[in-house]
Amino acid sequence: MADEVSLLDYWPSMFGMRTKMALAEKGVAYEYVETDPWVKTPLLIEMNPIHKKIPVLIHKGKPICESLIQLEYIDEVWSGTYPMLPSDPYQKAQARFWADFIDKKFYDPSWKVWGTKGEDQVAAKKELLEHFKTLETELGDKTYYGGEVFGFVDIALMGYYSWFKAMEKFGEFSIETEFPKLNEWTKRCLKRESVVKAIADSDKIIEYAYALRKKFGAE
Amino acid sequence: MADEVSLLDYWPSMFGMRTKMALAEKGVAYEYVETDPWVKTPLLIEMNPIHKKIPVLIHKGKPICESLIQLEYIDEVWSGTYPMLPSDPYQKAQARFWADFIDKKFYDPSWKVWGTKGEDQVAAKKELLEHFKTLETELGDKTYYGGEVFGFVDIALMGYYSWFKAMEKFGEFSIETEFPKLNEWTKRCLKRESVVKAIADSDKIIEYAYALRKKFGAE
Repeated sequence: MADEVSLLDYWPSMFGMRTKMALAEKGVAYEYVETDPWVKTPLLIEMNPIHKKIPVLIHKGKPICESLIQLEYIDEVWSGTYPMLPSDPYQKAQARFWADFIDKKFYDPSWKVWGTKGEDQVAAKKELLEHFKTLETELGDKTYYGGEVFGFVDIALMGYYSWFKAMEKFGEFSIETEFPKLNEWTKRCLKRESVVKAIADSDKIIEYAYALRKKFGAE
Repeated sequence: MADEVSLLDYWPSMFGMRTKMALAEKGVAYEYVETDPWVKTPLLIEMNPIHKKIPVLIHKGKPICESLIQLEYIDEVWSGTYPMLPSDPYQKAQARFWADFIDKKFYDPSWKVWGTKGEDQVAAKKELLEHFKTLETELGDKTYYGGEVFGFVDIALMGYYSWFKAMEKFGEFSIETEFPKLNEWTKRCLKRESVVKAIADSDKIIEYAYALRKKFGAE
């Protein structure tokens, strides 16, 4: 197994995309194990018995679950190259705060905007736009969320990038028009090989979103 | 301001109790600012404009929000005394996983079991008991969640201790009977001065829970 690292992941997962970016930034080779989370494979259940969710990072046979925890782990184990988190405790706390914000606040409306219909979708859109606005304001005129260096929060949010087009399509809004700074930030992030290699094709994600809409009874 | 640290907190908050335990374990003196989160005070809005929630830890004038992020910050800034998180990256990831589990899974049914009624309460109780079972199993025969040392996960879960009696009362179950290992663990934790000083009186919490039940329309 390459560098004794493997990743149980599913191609559309915004969480898996984060971990793939982090591993690429650190130059860590790994075995990729495509794992549909709707099918609870024995390996998935063995490696993540509590949540039974991907991504699961396996290092030397031991599983690390939850993408942000994986990012912290990767940053600590492969600490010699490219730090993802700032060393200053306050800056680090701020990075953790924004990544946590993305998972606590952004995630829910980000899927409901394409995965629901009617009033639920209207409410999700309103909430999602507020969160995009918050993230646009926090970015401000900085190059990346942490300043000059592509880091923890950039990876946390760029994990969602492949889903942006689906959010825009079903939510009927334009990131380019409404959140120009965030839009320019995505372009900067997309210049990184780690990002380009990790992300899924936005059109394929839209097809997948259509399939999930049917599954969720929203179509 | 004592050691340039202050804490905006509200006495019944399980999250604030965590931070108080951590500060006490580290021997950090601080100014306590009682802040009812139902009243959005100008200071709370200034210090936590995104979530407008307590606890907010303020160090040298700068706010750190979200209790688990505060614990990490406290562990890093006052690193000379009593490490809360293990130094080994894998053990650290495991500690983060369980603290995250408590917030992601345990929190929701833990308040719904006393804050709702009817079917919602029945569902919350079922879920809560499953999570208690998971936490009992994870503890197993260890002294503390991390092994021999009272640490990050112990603090994360003991934050809820003052609410256990309310959960038992409204949920009609007994931690002592159903989760004996966890019950013994609480007794061990309660021998620590940091814990005793941080926690609220369980009977006052029950009174507060009654007031909230009325507010939520569950009474």
